[in-house]
Amino acid sequence: MALRVELINTGSELLLGSVINTHLPFLAESLFPMGLRISRQVTVPDGEAIFDALRETHGRADIVLVTGGLGPTTDDITREAAARWLCLELVLDPEILRGIEDRFACRGLKMSERVALQAYRPLQARVLANAHGTAPGLYLPAMRLNPEGPETPHLFLLPGPPRELQPMFNASVEPLLRALVAEHSSEPPKQKRIYRIVGCGESQVEAELGEDLLGLGIELGYCARSGEVDLRILGNERQLGAAEKMVIEKFGRHIVSSDERNLEKVVVDELRARGQTLSTAESCTGGMIAHRVTNVAGASLAFLCGYVCYANAAKIRDLGVQPETIESHGAVSAEVAAQLAGGLLEKTGSDHAIATTGIAGPGGGTPEKPVGTVYIALSSRHAPAVVKRHLFPTDRENFKRQVTQTALEMLRQRLMGLE
Amino acid sequence: MALRVELINTGSELLLGSVINTHLPFLAESLFPMGLRISRQVTVPDGEAIFDALRETHGRADIVLVTGGLGPTTDDITREAAARWLCLELVLDPEILRGIEDRFACRGLKMSERVALQAYRPLQARVLANAHGTAPGLYLPAMRLNPEGPETPHLFLLPGPPRELQPMFNASVEPLLRALVAEHSSEPPKQKRIYRIVGCGESQVEAELGEDLLGLGIELGYCARSGEVDLRILGNERQLGAAEKMVIEKFGRHIVSSDERNLEKVVVDELRARGQTLSTAESCTGGMIAHRVTNVAGASLAFLCGYVCYANAAKIRDLGVQPETIESHGAVSAEVAAQLAGGLLEKTGSDHAIATTGIAGPGGGTPEKPVGTVYIALSSRHAPAVVKRHLFPTDRENFKRQVTQTALEMLRQRLMGLE
Repeated sequence: MALRVELINTGSELLLGSVINTHLPFLAESLFPMGLRISRQVTVPDGEAIFDALRETHGRADIVLVTGGLGPTTDDITREAAARWLCLELVLDPEILRGIEDRFACRGLKMSERVALQAYRPLQARVLANAHGTAPGLYLPAMRLNPEGPETPHLFLLPGPPRELQPMFNASVEPLLRALVAEHSSEPPKQKRIYRIVGCGESQVEAELGEDLLGLGIELGYCARSGEVDLRILGNERQLGAAEKMVIEKFGRHIVSSDERNLEKVVVDELRARGQTLSTAESCTGGMIAHRVTNVAGASLAFLCGYVCYANAAKIRDLGVQPETIESHGAVSAEVAAQLAGGLLEKTGSDHAIATTGIAGPGGGTPEKPVGTVYIALSSRHAPAVVKRHLFPTDRENFKRQVTQTALEMLRQRLMGLE
Repeated sequence: MALRVELINTGSELLLGSVINTHLPFLAESLFPMGLRISRQVTVPDGEAIFDALRETHGRADIVLVTGGLGPTTDDITREAAARWLCLELVLDPEILRGIEDRFACRGLKMSERVALQAYRPLQARVLANAHGTAPGLYLPAMRLNPEGPETPHLFLLPGPPRELQPMFNASVEPLLRALVAEHSSEPPKQKRIYRIVGCGESQVEAELGEDLLGLGIELGYCARSGEVDLRILGNERQLGAAEKMVIEKFGRHIVSSDERNLEKVVVDELRARGQTLSTAESCTGGMIAHRVTNVAGASLAFLCGYVCYANAAKIRDLGVQPETIESHGAVSAEVAAQLAGGLLEKTGSDHAIATTGIAGPGGGTPEKPVGTVYIALSSRHAPAVVKRHLFPTDRENFKRQVTQTALEMLRQRLMGLE
């Protein structure tokens, strides 16, 4: 059976929402390659609640990581609560005290009395040095509180500030955990793969793949965002190989990456690999395609320029859209999208040109072209032009996100020869 | 006694560290002005663990908010676990089903069988409409499972994606919670005011105002984002009035809004109020100014067009920058920024023109113009042109955010006559 890990975060600031809990993602990602998963995470306020949270883990967890509550203020009671739970005495550790005194002296600060409380520890605890703060961490190995009950979890008390915790984890906690894992299991740790799939919903991916994948005995997870879903697979090498075959067979053409690159990064990488360039003419997306593409470092080698042709005058002046076309078909039409992309290609000399025109809302819809209607055109130097109509009836920001997602995916499919 | 609120987040992706838990800060900040505090937060994986997490709250919490596990996949069992805990039967709700079917039909998607599971609910549940996804939320009022025990908490089952949860919370959950608070307490609820301050850091605001404000007996909170800080104040009417005087005296010219409008919304509102228009020429910000401005509903009345002139050729061709200027001063220079804004104003006929040119990094820096250097130009029909140089040595996305923030604030100050 796998070692069960739980995480307890103390800190009223976390429960007030003013500080984001970055310990959970940091520790989860650090534990992962060791084959360890966090099975439960709890946040409790500073003070007495930590005692209950600790006691609850008894019999349920093999390893418990605690963050925060090691400082000098009156509500920092993690050290004391752990000792009380395990019926251990706190004693002054002269070496820790000397370290704290040195730290204050070297900064020319006066040491208040409460600061010295951080030098107390149970004799049974192993001290985890803190290179970036006063309070050291403590490791309390599993112990038996009474002959019948289960052992208590291996307990790691860690400081709250991430810039103290993270180096301490890497230097002191990780080696201890690795030793525990080695002692406990002969199985090789599992590997992770994440497939980013664009243009399919979470339910579609699960319906077409879920059961087959679970049949391999792997762990599965989904994470859906607007216009894409991440399929996460955990297993050994053989299982991952078999899973990959299934995933590619069903969704190959929709898989943007299996290395956590996002769509815009993949598009820029593929353009650069081919020495090709892109330009954009955006009406309803208002510059978001250009914004996403230029978020990628090195985009300037693949992205020439963009036009945010919000006003009709700009469509006509800059991209050669014909006023009659707007008059007879409307600015939101396949014809205008095609003229935008065509004019763009001609004007900029780029290899590919993307154009969008649509109705982001909340106003502006008609029965034939309701809010959410969009035309996306893709023209390329060496491939036929295409225009696609879509409907994304949602709020304005999500509409823009869905349209940019669809447009970038059209280009990716063209670049990969998947059209 | 205050109502005790607990939060349960389900989702293996949270425990794997691949997704940050944004529900906790969002909900904590939303609950705060109602006088509600979260006393415990727990994250459990998808699947059976949700059942234990729910049951544990019995007798310890008055209100429990649950996020996630309402979707169509096999590990989405929050709905079913809650019904099992409360001994309630799940029945098909034809109205929810119709809503889901409409949603799929209007997108032209095929509905898989599992999707319909989202239309089941306990008869006792109140349905919380989901404007941005298929699965509705559910509210289960407190009930007694047996005559002796305590009542179960008021239970709110909410969807996992933040863009579904947040609007649902604001539209449906908040009013229900306010009613619960009103029923439970006779104290008048405190009022909240949020000052959005641009161009000052959190520590500066705290240093210049913190003590004075706390002296009024109010509650204070800060929320810092890239390039802005929200100062949150809670108190009664008299206290808020006194606080407002202090805040305006110290930071008046930097306060963008006190009604939660963001900078781009304020800029669009002020432009529209004056019947004026804006156009943009962006090099290093890659379209992000246009993107932010066009996120505002009704932006088309104030925003004419934008140019993302990434390549030098585009700067010369579209905006009349002189090749010699680029040659002698470099594309990242005050001279080029000024020519971009000037050319833009002339070409588009807009009342205001913003131009940016800079080095977003990670490459491209020089000793005189290191990574993070930017020139921002603002030209207006009836006001003198200005060019400002700034240095934002940070990562690429944050650089873009800081530059767009500074540029929009330059325009806001001009519109408000604060220059």
